[in-house]
Amino acid sequence: MSARTVTIKENILGANEKKADSNRKLLDSHHVLMINMMSASGSGKTSLILRTIDRLGGKYRIAVIQGGVAPSIDGDKITRQSVPAIPINTGGGCHLDAQMIRQALEALDLDRTDLILIENVGNLVCTADFDLGAHKNAVILSIPEGDDKPRKYPMMFVEADVVLVNKADVLPYFDFNLEAFPEIIRGLNPSAGVFAVSAKTGDGLDCWFSWLEEALG
Amino acid sequence: MSARTVTIKENILGANEKKADSNRKLLDSHHVLMINMMSASGSGKTSLILRTIDRLGGKYRIAVIQGGVAPSIDGDKITRQSVPAIPINTGGGCHLDAQMIRQALEALDLDRTDLILIENVGNLVCTADFDLGAHKNAVILSIPEGDDKPRKYPMMFVEADVVLVNKADVLPYFDFNLEAFPEIIRGLNPSAGVFAVSAKTGDGLDCWFSWLEEALG
Repeated sequence: MSARTVTIKENILGANEKKADSNRKLLDSHHVLMINMMSASGSGKTSLILRTIDRLGGKYRIAVIQGGVAPSIDGDKITRQSVPAIPINTGGGCHLDAQMIRQALEALDLDRTDLILIENVGNLVCTADFDLGAHKNAVILSIPEGDDKPRKYPMMFVEADVVLVNKADVLPYFDFNLEAFPEIIRGLNPSAGVFAVSAKTGDGLDCWFSWLEEALG
Repeated sequence: MSARTVTIKENILGANEKKADSNRKLLDSHHVLMINMMSASGSGKTSLILRTIDRLGGKYRIAVIQGGVAPSIDGDKITRQSVPAIPINTGGGCHLDAQMIRQALEALDLDRTDLILIENVGNLVCTADFDLGAHKNAVILSIPEGDDKPRKYPMMFVEADVVLVNKADVLPYFDFNLEAFPEIIRGLNPSAGVFAVSAKTGDGLDCWFSWLEEALG
């Protein structure tokens, strides 16, 4: 990378960070918790969000912000659950940024919201570089992707507050060492919780719901 | 996106395209075929490349260029097969570009190379925006990622010359309509070949090897 490229990148990230802090202050003033959910495409973010709405939607007022190149497909799934869902089309960009989130926050009624789940663009590489103003980062890795992913894409896992290992129902058909996996995560990030879950069968999701409820305070 | 952002993006892509054309000319002058392999992380690019070296490495002189945030893990797997493997660490960037590829080409002995396989960064979103100078694009989607991915991330599939549906061995455990899938791809891209394969069992790979041999001419 040239010196000029580095400077531009630093300026973009610096401006993003200010906007992210401003988003967090806005949310705090309305007592709203925001979670940034990140994963590769196809890890099951949408299914996990639908399960979370099913379980906690009666107790907390939930809204969803969905980033994508063509996010309307999953957005339809979520609005069918009578929960506000704000789509953000990144125009080909591979991550959300704090300004995009700000616009979505302005479209929501924050006084009638307890919890915002951000479904970030499906991408393990650069989504974690951009602070969105969320209070916590949840990273989803699914069994079929392989247990080597934290070593290949470490940044995402370093930034995680919780790691959900999804599609645990298909563990018997893949070479994924689930027993050793929490230790791999601890090597990168000693404080992140690691929960094996299946959005399909519902197994293990209680730990995720408890974690969320604790964060909601 | 602001007008300035758009202009910067256009300039970057314009400069990249010139360099990509120059890469292609360089390869043509040495009679080398270069394939850009793109997928999300965990789709099985590395395993497919290892299978390809196993099958075609005795007949053609193969080299591999591997992009990643921490590519040395897979690079080790490939150099164990006595094939030149050039790692490119993108420094957190989510795609390769033509200049990075140029540097890798300069590190290879092109007069002793027939086929270069590029393992792009694992990311379905923005890798396809950057022409690298490859002659063909191979896109890999694995069964566990779901059959909705071409609709959610269309650009990648529009740019594909061939789509490999990997991990076909686990089809019974996922809701993936493999029968209807080629029609979904044809809707985006009428000319791309679609092959269901398993890098794990080897099933279906003959079609991929034949496609490659035809491209090699």
